Amino acid sequence: MEILKVSGSSVPRSVAGAIAAVLRREETVAVQAVGAMAVNQAVKSMAIAREYLVDDAWDLAITPSFEHIDIDGAERTAIKFVCTRKARAVANDTQAPVPSEV
Amino acid sequence: MEILKVSGSSVPRSVAGAIAAVLRREETVAVQAVGAMAVNQAVKSMAIAREYLVDDAWDLAITPSFEHIDIDGAERTAIKFVCTRKARAVANDTQAPVPSEV
Repeated sequence: MEILKVSGSSVPRSVAGAIAAVLRREETVAVQAVGAMAVNQAVKSMAIAREYLVDDAWDLAITPSFEHIDIDGAERTAIKFVCTRKARAVANDTQAPVPSEV
Repeated sequence: MEILKVSGSSVPRSVAGAIAAVLRREETVAVQAVGAMAVNQAVKSMAIAREYLVDDAWDLAITPSFEHIDIDGAERTAIKFVCTRKARAVANDTQAPVPSEV
C-alpha cells in the first residue's frame, strides 16, 4: 500500500490530488501524519480528495489507527489513515463547499 | 444522526467511549471538531473507538467533510466525521497498542 506522508506545512489541495491519483489506480492508500498540525492537514486533504473523486463516482472510507514510527532514532506516535475507495452514494453528496482559505 | 462535539481539551478515551456507545445502538454517529487541536483529539478518539468495538466485531469507516457552522454569530469551518460501523475484518487487526499518553 502506498504511503503519503503529510506534515503540518503540507498543502491540503496538493495532498488531496495525490490521494485521488493513487485511488484512481489502486483500491487503498495510506496517509501518515505525526502531530496535531499534520493530522489536521491530513484530514482536510482527505475531505478535499472526496470532492476530487466525485467525477470518478468514488468516495472514501477511512480507518485511522496509531502507529509507532522511528524518526531520527526517537519513537514517535503517528496516525495512519487507511483510505479505501468506495462507490459514491448520491444522497451522500451534501458536503459544504471546500473553504477558500484551505 | 447523533452529533458528538469534540474540543481541543476533550479526552480521547472518553470521546471514544461515547462513539462506541452510540455505534452499539445506531449505525452511524457524527463527530464534529473546530480547529486543529479538536480535529486531532477527534481522530485519536475514533482510533481508540475502533479498539473499544473489537469485542462487538465492529470496525469504523469514516468520511470527513467540511461544514460551516455558526459559533456566537461568527461563521466557522468545522470538520464533520461521519462514523459508520462495519463488520470487522480479522486481517485488519494490526493496529499498534493505544499509546499510554493519549
